[in-house]
Amino acid sequence: MTRIYLDHNATSPMRDCAISAMQDLLSRPLNASSIHAEGRFAMAQLEKARHALAAHLSAPHQGVIFTGGGSESCNQAIKGWDEAVRPFKRILVSGIEHDAVRKPASACGLNVSVINTKPNGVIDIDHLSELLAGEPALVCAMLANNETGVIQPISEICALTKEHNGLVFCDATQAIGKMPVSFIGLGVDMLAVSGHKFGGPVGVGALLVRPSLPIGPLVAGGGQELGRRSGTQNVPAIMAMVSALEEAIDELPHMSQLGQFRDAFEKQLSAFFPNVHIVGKDAPRLENTSCFAIAGVKAETLLMGLDLAGISISSGSACSSGKVGRSHVLESMRVDTDIAQAALRVSLGRGNTMNDLDAFMHSFKKEMSRQLMSAAE
Amino acid sequence: MTRIYLDHNATSPMRDCAISAMQDLLSRPLNASSIHAEGRFAMAQLEKARHALAAHLSAPHQGVIFTGGGSESCNQAIKGWDEAVRPFKRILVSGIEHDAVRKPASACGLNVSVINTKPNGVIDIDHLSELLAGEPALVCAMLANNETGVIQPISEICALTKEHNGLVFCDATQAIGKMPVSFIGLGVDMLAVSGHKFGGPVGVGALLVRPSLPIGPLVAGGGQELGRRSGTQNVPAIMAMVSALEEAIDELPHMSQLGQFRDAFEKQLSAFFPNVHIVGKDAPRLENTSCFAIAGVKAETLLMGLDLAGISISSGSACSSGKVGRSHVLESMRVDTDIAQAALRVSLGRGNTMNDLDAFMHSFKKEMSRQLMSAAE
Repeated sequence: MTRIYLDHNATSPMRDCAISAMQDLLSRPLNASSIHAEGRFAMAQLEKARHALAAHLSAPHQGVIFTGGGSESCNQAIKGWDEAVRPFKRILVSGIEHDAVRKPASACGLNVSVINTKPNGVIDIDHLSELLAGEPALVCAMLANNETGVIQPISEICALTKEHNGLVFCDATQAIGKMPVSFIGLGVDMLAVSGHKFGGPVGVGALLVRPSLPIGPLVAGGGQELGRRSGTQNVPAIMAMVSALEEAIDELPHMSQLGQFRDAFEKQLSAFFPNVHIVGKDAPRLENTSCFAIAGVKAETLLMGLDLAGISISSGSACSSGKVGRSHVLESMRVDTDIAQAALRVSLGRGNTMNDLDAFMHSFKKEMSRQLMSAAE
Repeated sequence: MTRIYLDHNATSPMRDCAISAMQDLLSRPLNASSIHAEGRFAMAQLEKARHALAAHLSAPHQGVIFTGGGSESCNQAIKGWDEAVRPFKRILVSGIEHDAVRKPASACGLNVSVINTKPNGVIDIDHLSELLAGEPALVCAMLANNETGVIQPISEICALTKEHNGLVFCDATQAIGKMPVSFIGLGVDMLAVSGHKFGGPVGVGALLVRPSLPIGPLVAGGGQELGRRSGTQNVPAIMAMVSALEEAIDELPHMSQLGQFRDAFEKQLSAFFPNVHIVGKDAPRLENTSCFAIAGVKAETLLMGLDLAGISISSGSACSSGKVGRSHVLESMRVDTDIAQAALRVSLGRGNTMNDLDAFMHSFKKEMSRQLMSAAE
């Protein structure tokens, strides 16, 4: 049985171009700090990748810090501040941030405030504006939410934050490769990148920063990445990530096709289940993501039934290891508990077709009637 | 021209078995936190790897935390302590530790003392004993030094530290794959592993801890690795690392052959250059490492000459990006400055033969006479 994978927001399989970029390098001894030919080759590749990544995301190449993944990037953005240079005492965290932002924010010793979310899944700018009054703050706001796909008004958030002398850290891990992303265009101070979300390898990412920001390392040691991230740079994975990013950006026009599939699917869904709640439907959303719920349904049971039928989707945030609980994202949007507990996420990616969504719909209907029948027994 | 790579302590090329283990997995969407079939497959691989790594290093599998590399592991061992549970106020750091230990130690807010090194490169146990008197401390001592190859008396250090209710963190990154390593046998509380030092991939490692130790994450977020290291686990790299470790351990008997090559080489070296200083010669050493110096020689110039001749070696610690400076390891051993500045490191690995060392010797003599001639001009 060929399985149908509809969980690209959790992780997307590596693109062939990325695998090939990686494979070309795996058998070579590449320590970019070594001054012999092998080391200089590694350094040349690394700097080529740095310039390419910067160019693809319209960011200054001096501000590219290669890291071990999106979570590390988020942690460094929040915790990589020396007491001496820390330009703020407060941190404002949107209610829909990933735990890789929420947890370090809670633990970083700054005064934390949560920015409200509107019911449509968009960060409440008016509430941010209220919160910004006072001492300068570090504002954490993601570009697109992993669970709902809702795209956030980062440019507005940056403009507002700048008026109050704050800094903006934007977790763009879920947006990159699914919509155009420009570091300079958004006006952010820091931006997190994760390789495996757009078909690069797992275990590699980047933190982009304004080059003048005095951010320090989360991982200290040999002094790589201009002292901002120590550890032998993972040249094969970095080259693969950049190759994947290049292709993902080239293929961005294809996203609107996925968006058409998604919209057609949601239309069918609403027609068949008039009580379906489509989360964030009225907000700007990533074209690949559909988060929906039918009150009273047990999401986990459905998910397992679909899995047996060969279809992979997710409920809530797929990053949270083994966790089954209420989604803080939906909670922040004040979605009713019975809907939140029923929420499923379908996230499309490279290679998915309308047939895949039709197959999903077919199995979903079957699983739904099975649930309704067992509830009626 | 086939190059001769004699810098395996900086990084060792990936073993074929590791490349193959990785390649088998690269094109699959593997998020071990997902509950669908792909996710469960990822989780099964991950747990297989966890048990295998633990078995190979005689460690409890519940104490295996997969990380993004050796530097991250070292940083977490030192900084991953919540104020609430921190069982010590002091940190004792051997003078020969890697910067990935020295730097976080300096920045972790504990009171830092440096443990002296004896002239032969071995940590001075008597000095440690003096330092341990007082409040309980976290002791940081590496198993084998990256620059000199000198093996440290970790079991003794652990016994002594335990008497004073301290904890021992052992950076074993340079030792694993080059000598037998047993977490339980050594008696350490924490131990750092780096994949690429024994033919695994770059960008992956582990921190092994006693399961009861209340260590927290350096990277917080999704809660992977029992909350001790967040971020989607890098299953392909982890499987590759474990495969490399397995083969490296199988091939440990081969190390004594490298040791014979190294000893023969050093004998020739001493015969030809009677004034050569072989660092750590009288101490137990890794069989693959030779660190030597001829006073007055410019190490960097020699290194570049050898590189042009197709031979890759290193001077001082190869992890320190682009840094040319005095080695703190040799300084700690109180090696004379003119010798320290001339120190070269040859580090053997898989595939190296006596022919490689003969070729090195040939080119080294040529470069030496070139230097002597240009000095005489």
